[in-house]
Formats: sequence, structure tokens, C-alpha cells
Amino acid sequence: MIDFQGIINNIHNNLIKEEVKGVVASYIPELYKQSTNSFGIYLQCINGETYAAGDAYTPFSIQSISKVLALSKAIAFEDNRIWERVDVEPSGNPFNHLSLLELENGIPRNPLINSGALVIADMLVTHLKNPKQDFLNYVRTIANDQTINYNTDVAASEKRTGYGNFAAANLLKSFNNLNNNVEDVLDFYFHQCAIDMSCAQLAKAFYLFANGGKCVNNVQHIPVSQAKRINAIMLTCGFYDEAGEFAFRVGLPGKSGVGGGIVALLPNNFIISTWAPGLNAKGNSLLGMQALEQFTTETKISIF
Amino acid sequence: MIDFQGIINNIHNNLIKEEVKGVVASYIPELYKQSTNSFGIYLQCINGETYAAGDAYTPFSIQSISKVLALSKAIAFEDNRIWERVDVEPSGNPFNHLSLLELENGIPRNPLINSGALVIADMLVTHLKNPKQDFLNYVRTIANDQTINYNTDVAASEKRTGYGNFAAANLLKSFNNLNNNVEDVLDFYFHQCAIDMSCAQLAKAFYLFANGGKCVNNVQHIPVSQAKRINAIMLTCGFYDEAGEFAFRVGLPGKSGVGGGIVALLPNNFIISTWAPGLNAKGNSLLGMQALEQFTTETKISIF
Amino acid sequence: MIDFQGIINNIHNNLIKEEVKGVVASYIPELYKQSTNSFGIYLQCINGETYAAGDAYTPFSIQSISKVLALSKAIAFEDNRIWERVDVEPSGNPFNHLSLLELENGIPRNPLINSGALVIADMLVTHLKNPKQDFLNYVRTIANDQTINYNTDVAASEKRTGYGNFAAANLLKSFNNLNNNVEDVLDFYFHQCAIDMSCAQLAKAFYLFANGGKCVNNVQHIPVSQAKRINAIMLTCGFYDEAGEFAFRVGLPGKSGVGGGIVALLPNNFIISTWAPGLNAKGNSLLGMQALEQFTTETKISIF
Amino acid sequence: MIDFQGIINNIHNNLIKEEVKGVVASYIPELYKQSTNSFGIYLQCINGETYAAGDAYTPFSIQSISKVLALSKAIAFEDNRIWERVDVEPSGNPFNHLSLLELENGIPRNPLINSGALVIADMLVTHLKNPKQDFLNYVRTIANDQTINYNTDVAASEKRTGYGNFAAANLLKSFNNLNNNVEDVLDFYFHQCAIDMSCAQLAKAFYLFANGGKCVNNVQHIPVSQAKRINAIMLTCGFYDEAGEFAFRVGLPGKSGVGGGIVALLPNNFIISTWAPGLNAKGNSLLGMQALEQFTTETKISIF
Repeated sequence: MIDFQGIINNIHNNLIKEEVKGVVASYIPELYKQSTNSFGIYLQCINGETYAAGDAYTPFSIQSISKVLALSKAIAFEDNRIWERVDVEPSGNPFNHLSLLELENGIPRNPLINSGALVIADMLVTHLKNPKQDFLNYVRTIANDQTINYNTDVAASEKRTGYGNFAAANLLKSFNNLNNNVEDVLDFYFHQCAIDMSCAQLAKAFYLFANGGKCVNNVQHIPVSQAKRINAIMLTCGFYDEAGEFAFRVGLPGKSGVGGGIVALLPNNFIISTWAPGLNAKGNSLLGMQALEQFTTETKISIF
Repeated sequence: MIDFQGIINNIHNNLIKEEVKGVVASYIPELYKQSTNSFGIYLQCINGETYAAGDAYTPFSIQSISKVLALSKAIAFEDNRIWERVDVEPSGNPFNHLSLLELENGIPRNPLINSGALVIADMLVTHLKNPKQDFLNYVRTIANDQTINYNTDVAASEKRTGYGNFAAANLLKSFNNLNNNVEDVLDFYFHQCAIDMSCAQLAKAFYLFANGGKCVNNVQHIPVSQAKRINAIMLTCGFYDEAGEFAFRVGLPGKSGVGGGIVALLPNNFIISTWAPGLNAKGNSLLGMQALEQFTTETKISIF
Repeated sequence: MIDFQGIINNIHNNLIKEEVKGVVASYIPELYKQSTNSFGIYLQCINGETYAAGDAYTPFSIQSISKVLALSKAIAFEDNRIWERVDVEPSGNPFNHLSLLELENGIPRNPLINSGALVIADMLVTHLKNPKQDFLNYVRTIANDQTINYNTDVAASEKRTGYGNFAAANLLKSFNNLNNNVEDVLDFYFHQCAIDMSCAQLAKAFYLFANGGKCVNNVQHIPVSQAKRINAIMLTCGFYDEAGEFAFRVGLPGKSGVGGGIVALLPNNFIISTWAPGLNAKGNSLLGMQALEQFTTETKISIF
Repeated sequence: MIDFQGIINNIHNNLIKEEVKGVVASYIPELYKQSTNSFGIYLQCINGETYAAGDAYTPFSIQSISKVLALSKAIAFEDNRIWERVDVEPSGNPFNHLSLLELENGIPRNPLINSGALVIADMLVTHLKNPKQDFLNYVRTIANDQTINYNTDVAASEKRTGYGNFAAANLLKSFNNLNNNVEDVLDFYFHQCAIDMSCAQLAKAFYLFANGGKCVNNVQHIPVSQAKRINAIMLTCGFYDEAGEFAFRVGLPGKSGVGGGIVALLPNNFIISTWAPGLNAKGNSLLGMQALEQFTTETKISIF
């Protein structure tokens, strides 16, 4: 039997002493205030056991991690029709995001890059009656926690400065791959990314992907087959331009956000989430990546 | 002595009979209403002589031709400082405009592609007290014609549907290469492109570029050296992805617009303008390109 | 207990009746002679059980599947030093292979695209005393079959017509990422790709990747950790521009070749190989992809 | 009347004192031996007058300047049929030459980039009985100088190390845009680039482009129309990624080489050549570019 608590304690205690902790994202003022000394780990097993280390209960901005939650909700509405508007291939392009969109006639490479997530957001704006409230309720439901909320300062900040996303949304619109108003889609999208959650809450919310589509309350939100597919997409596309590196070093499907969070999971076994605001050069949490690599190395657990 | 009137009459009469006349731009409803049977040619010599054939006095939407006029006004304000924000190299990229902008950190390749023209528009919004009125006055002055005006239907139409330009402006803003509000710059830019002018009016307005910076009323608007440089930029960048082809076949600096207009010039000699709304696959007026090629072939006149 | 024999029989019998069977690769004359009616499936379980359907014992040209075998041999020599000369990220670029190589200064995106496989081949030419014979012996050993051989006609054919590979090798050389002569590396590489193997032989050879680095004869050829990493690379990079699609639809690490072969595996469980020479538009075996999708759908087995 | 001798003397004397003289090309050992203190200027007027300053009679490796001479010979054989295999658009891509070739299916963007020059070389290998001797004779003839010769050390050096050109030639071959053997075309091409000529000899050889196709001995080698077209291509494509900059600052058609030479011309007026081995960051002669800019600025002569 593996001593999960001992392992994550060890990882936490060793890594927190590292001098190099990465650089906090600076493009959103609210994120920039975070300390690189924050560091939490949370492990949620499918059998119900949980283990925590460090700042596992402190909420932070989940940012791009929200793209997986939005994707699951869009799949619940549209099933496989969503793949007519977004592809499932890794972007593999470290430098040049809008160019691929131009080359491929407005079909984003996958739903976890910004342009793809905007198409997913557009679908949710179409399907949800009160998009922002309904999506928040969905997240609260699958995480089984009514205290989860938007950080409206972060959302407002992104709205003021998110010119890259305005560019992407307008480009999608120019290719007829956005059905709603640019402003409405972006307002929803900026809120979606501005949800605050802790490692513990994130691990709960991602339970359904490790559990064949059933959430912690045993409600089936998406079919088993779609849960598997979302895991496949996380593995091939979940870490910006470092997806191959994460698959190679960690060997689990997962998703990171510029707020410093990462969630990864072993289907039918567990969900593990980390939070450390310092990012590496590719925009993924530096300590988080190391923590997850050490976790799978020491436990010898991976999908490979 | 060359029989200019005979030559342009011949060209006009032969080409108007061609069955293949290209395709009218469809992305702006107002432009789409135009007939491919419209065809005008106007020749303005530096010595004051003028020659006209066909619809040389019918106003049409000058669109991208306006970029040269805006560039000359920006140069009058900023002189060589403008080259810190926009380059002078051909774009050479038939498919993928925003990608180059991303690759080159928000510095557009030249002032005659859309992203470059947006940076120029941003400069004018900064320098002009009443940007739209002042720019219109400038065009009226250099063309010596107070009847020139904006087509506000065209401007409004571009504002409603110009998502590609919204994307480019936001991308520039994300690279800190736009000082004013995206909306203000685009409002100015959509108006600038929506000026209606005839071949005759265009030839008059471009007189200053063929005349060392002095307009038809003998007023020096830009230095000789800058007039030459604008001609160089027209030659290398004036025809979207067909700049090399135009230099090769016609051999004159020039600029085209999707409204079907083209203006070209031989420094110290003449300005020739054509209008035929049917475009070729690269977005340049089909009959206009042929007319200008025949003109330089028959008169044996080119800068080369 | 799953009826593997019944399932692969069913898949074979249903798919063989399909009218659309893809197009045989035409660029190598020897491959072009193959019939789209050939179709074999072989399942090798870790516990030793085997199941066969159709042409499972007919040898065919393994082509790019050989890249995984070469990678495993290079890792045996160089361990993690190989990642200084080749990356592990998906290429994600459907159209333009050499360009990425130029952009990234001669470091191929991963070892399973042609340029990356050439770097791996270069390593083997450096380390092996008699590169071609020694590599063949390695493949015979891990597949436990001394009858496996090169098809010298195929190798000679690729040498005569493989200008794209000559281009890639010279480009690598220009970036100092090829230590041996271009000719020597390509001679080895064309032979490596020209090994003939059957589905049964391929499944045996890949046993070591599903078995923590130990081959069918229980010899440890590479460490457990490297076997896992090779599986991760197969999952993210094994199917040209369809890696995401394969992960999404099939959910197993695998590798395809233009000879029509595919091998996929579930770590610690089984290896499944298919052969059907008709390719889809992305260059992967059409029936093979469908067979593997049906197999994981019906058995509900995948890494996700 | 302009004091040409005084002007070029002044330019030479001032620039030779500059501390920053650029960096000698290092990729060919023979070129690397050159001194950055070498500096020559030669002016050949159409009326027969000539003016020289500095090292105007020292031979140097003409390198890419040879592409214009080869182009003129290919046009003599194939006339406009050559444009079926090579385009006339600027490359506009500062970083990535082979990628455009891939994107555009093996049709080089213009005949003055390496891949385009290789297609031209392939044409000459097809048409010339003894390609190397016949081409050398052509250059001797148009320059009216039988002492011009290949530098076989330079040719051999490029053959040993020119992996980028081997890559390009093989890529062209893979697109069926090379009719002869890769080796034969490259042997010819490496010799073509390895011709040694002085500023004076180059100015004589380019006389025909400034003189409507007639060389210094009054022989018509190409039609007037093709001479004009070659000038147009030099203007839009003659300076690698600095073609726009040269047109903008100098305003003359021209061609540079990594040996430090530049030739530029004003049709029907003069040819001016410079040699200074130190290159700027874009690979063009640093002093040469400055000399030509000063020359057109002081004489107020340009095509614009």
C-alpha cells in the first residue's frame, strides 16, 4: 500500500525550499499580486480518500483549467457535433497562435487553446439561459461546493487588457465560427477563467473525468466515452507547448492555468491538483510540474 | 510624340469587350452592388495635360488606395519616426497576415497592408484634432476638389462586418503598437477607406507623389525624399501578394483597392488611374491590371 | 472474460467488406503493388495469449513503425542525452515539416517525424559497429524471430526517390545536428524503414514497450521509465498529423507506417497490430484505424 | 553637371574611416579570409564614362550577384516559359526559406533566392552543352573581359559545406522542379557563385540591364522587355530580406552577394558597383549599402 500522505508531504517540503520558483504571470494585475511561496497539493482518490499538503484549501484563479470544465458542459449539450467547429490535434506551435487559425480557416486546433476555448464559450452562451450563472452553478454542482465564485476583479481586469482574446474572437467571427456577439462571448469567457477555486475544490470538480463521467455525488454528467475523450485531449493538448513534455515526464492527462494551478488524473484511480503561482518559460507552474513528476516517479503510477 | 488619348481609348475599347472581367468584392454589401461593366481610365500629366476614357469621372470606393494618402499625412507629422512602428518590407505571404504580425512582435511589415495601415491610422488619430474631418480636408486639398466625401454607408458596413480588422487592431494593441482606443482607430480607418473618388480625382490627389511632394496647386506637402520613399513602398508593397507581378508586368509604383481602383505613376511624368470593379484572384482589378500593362507596353514607359 | 478472438474476427469480417478502403502509398513503387484487400489483425497479450485474424502472418514493409524500434535502441545507448538533439513535442503542423526544423534551429520536434528519426538514425550509425546488420539483429532479438529481414528492393527504391529525406538530412547537417555523412545516415535509414514484418512479428517486437522494457524472452532492453516515455511519445506523436485524433478515438499509444501497418498497445496488458495497405488522407491505414477504434470501443479498454 | 568622381571619392574616403564595418561571411572559409578594409566603388555610365575609387579593380567572389547573370541567360533560352517554374514575388520571410517552398509546392518565390536560383541553374544545365564553360564564356562576353574566371577553391568549399543548398535542391527535386541530377545542378551552381570579378568587371557585365538588353559591345542579348523585367525583379527581390529597405533608401534595382559586392543601376543612365566584405545583420555589405544610399542622396538620382 502506498503512503500517499507521506509522499505528498515529502514533495511539498522539498520543493518549497527550492530557490528558483518561477515567475508569477504579470499580464493580469490581480494575478501578479500572488506570492511564489504559495504551494498546495491535494490528492482525491476515487474511493473517497483525500490527502492534502500546504495551501491546498486556498482559492486561486483557475484560468485555463476552466476550459476543461466548459468543454464538458458543451459536450453535454452538443455531443460530437462540437468537433465540426474545433479540432482535436495538438497545436505544436510555440510562437504563433493566430496564424494556425488563419491557415486552417477558423477551425481552432483544439478546445484547450484560447481560440478553441472561445468557440466552446460561444456554444455555452448559445445553450445556457443565464450563461454566467448557469455555468457557475454547474461548477458548484460537480465540485459539490456552493461557495465557489467568480473573482469579478480578475474578470474585469482581463476585459480591460485582454486584447489578444479580442483579436482571436474577432478572427473567429471573421471565419463565421462565432455565433454570438464578440462582446457577449468574451464577457462569458473572461468570467469562466476568473473562477476562484482551491486545489481541493478543483480535484473534486475533476472527479467526473476520472470516474467515467460521474461526479462525486454519483450523477452522470457526460457519457463514459466522452470522459475518456476529454482525458485524451488533456493529455495531448493540456499544457500549451509543453503537452509532449508533460506526457513524457508525468504521464497523466491534465490541465494547467497561468494562475499556477494544475490538475492531473489517473482514470479510475485519483485526481491530483497542485498550486504554485511561479511559472516556467512555457507558462506552466514550475513547482507544480516538478511535484507531479516526482509523484508519478515515486508512486510508479502513470497511464503508460 | 505619343498619342495618349488614342492609346487609352484603344485600351478601354478592347478590354471592355472581354468576357472575363473578374469578380466584384462581396464582403462589403455596398461594393457588391457595383457592375463589372464600369471601366474608367484617367491620365494626368505633370505638365497639366489630362486624358480620359470611359467612366473616368464616376466616384467609387477607394478603399486601400487611401492607405497611401494616410501614409503621406502621417509622414508629414512624424517624418522618419513612423518607421519605428512599421517596417518597409514586402509581406510576401499570400495566406496569412496576422501570423507575420505575431512573429514580428506587432511591427507590421509595411504601411500598405491592413495592420500597417491601422498603425498609420492610429498616428493620425493622435495628431489630428478632428481626425475624420481633418483627413477629408487634406484629401480635398491635395486633389483640389471640395466635393470629395465619405460614403458613410460603406463605412458603417465595414464597421458592422470588419471582424478581420478588429482582430488586427486588437492584436496590435496587445503588442502595444496602438496608442488610441481600438474603436476610435477603427472608426477613423473605416471612414478613410470609405472615401468615394473618381479616377480623375485620384489622379489629381496622387499628383504630389509624382511631383516631388508638391500637389497640383504647387504646395509642398512632404519633402522630395519622402515622396520618393512612398513611391518605393508602393512599388514593393502596393498590390497585396501581387506586388512583384505588378512591378514585373507594369513597372510603375502604384496602389490598388478592392473597390476596383488602381493608381500608378511615373515620377516627374504622369499619374494614371483606372477603375473596373471586377477583381482577379489576388484581389486586384482584373481589367485595371491589364490596362496598365498594355499602357506601359505600348508607350514603352516604365521606371525600369 | 472478454472474447478477444470473437471480437477481432468480427471486426475483420465487417471491415473487409467496406467498399472504401483508402489509397495505397504510391511514392514507393514496391509499396504501390500491394492490394487494398490485404487485412490482418494480431493481438498479443502480456500473459502470452495470442489471437489472429486475416493476413496476420504476411510480412509487409513496416516503414515508420521502425522509428519506435530505432528510438528504443538509441535510448539504450544514449539514455536521456538523446533529448539534447530532438524534442518530445507533437509537430501539429499538417503541411510543412522542414519549416519547423528551420524555425527551431535544426532540433526536430520529436523522434517520430522524419527529421527526428534521421537524428536517431545518425546516433545508431555512430554507436553500432555494423549499423545495418546490428540493428536487424536487435529487431530479430526483441521479436524472437531470426527470419525478419530487410527488403532491399524497397530500400533501393527509397534511395533512388527519397529526395524529401535527402533534403531533411542536409538541412539537419547544415544545423550541425547530424554527425555522420548524409549518405551513410540515409543508407541506414532507408534500410531501417524497409524491414518486412508481419502483424504477428510486430506485436512480438513491441512487447517490450507494453512490458516495462522486457522483451518476450524476458530480457530487459531499456529501463521501465524509458519504456513509459516511449509510450508517451507514441501517444502524442505516433500518427503524423492525426495523433490527437488517434488518442481521441482509440486511446492507446501506437505507431503507424505508410506500408499500412499500425501497432498499438495497452501497457501491462496487450499489443495489437493491424495491416491494411489502403491509407486515409493523413497517411494512416484506413481500415487499421477503424479496426483499432472498434476494438477499444467494444472491449471498453483504453488508457483513459 | 554632376561631379561623379568627386562624389564617389568623398563617399569612399568618409566611409573607409568608419569603425563599424560589418562582419565578413564566415560560412565559406575562402570568404572569411577577406579584410573588412577592402572597399571599392566603380561607376559605369551608359555614355561610356567611368569613375573608380578604392579597390575597384580587385576581383572578389560575386556569389549571389551571379544569379542575375544566370537569370538573363536562362531568359535568353526559355523566355517567359521560365515563369512556369519560378515566381516573381518577394520572399518577405526573414527566417524561413524552405518552408515557403513547401507551402507553395516547390515553386520558388523568385529567381534571386537560393531555391529559385537552383531552378534557373537547372535550366542552364539543360540548355548549355558544357554548362560551366559556356556560362563562363557568356559572362566574359557581356563583361568584355576574357580574364574573368571561376575560383575553384571557393566552389570546392561550397560543395563540401553547402548542406543548405543540398537540402533546397533535393526539396525541389521532390516537387519535380529539378530536371537534372541534384549533383550536376549543384556543381554548376557552386561554380556560378564562385566567379571572381572586380567592381569594374561587374559594372560592365550589368551594362546590358541598364541598356535595354545590349551589352557594352552593342550586342542584343535579351529583349528590351526582359531587361526591364529583370530590373523589376532586382528591385523587389535583390537584397534578401532587405529588398524593401534598399528600394526605400537607395531607390535603384540592384543585387548583393555575401562576398560583399553590390551592383545597382539606373536604366539608361549608369551602373554602379561597390565591394566591401563586411556584412550587416541581413547579409548585405554594410559600407556598400551606405555608399549607394549616399550616392543617390547626393546626386538626387533614383528611379522614384
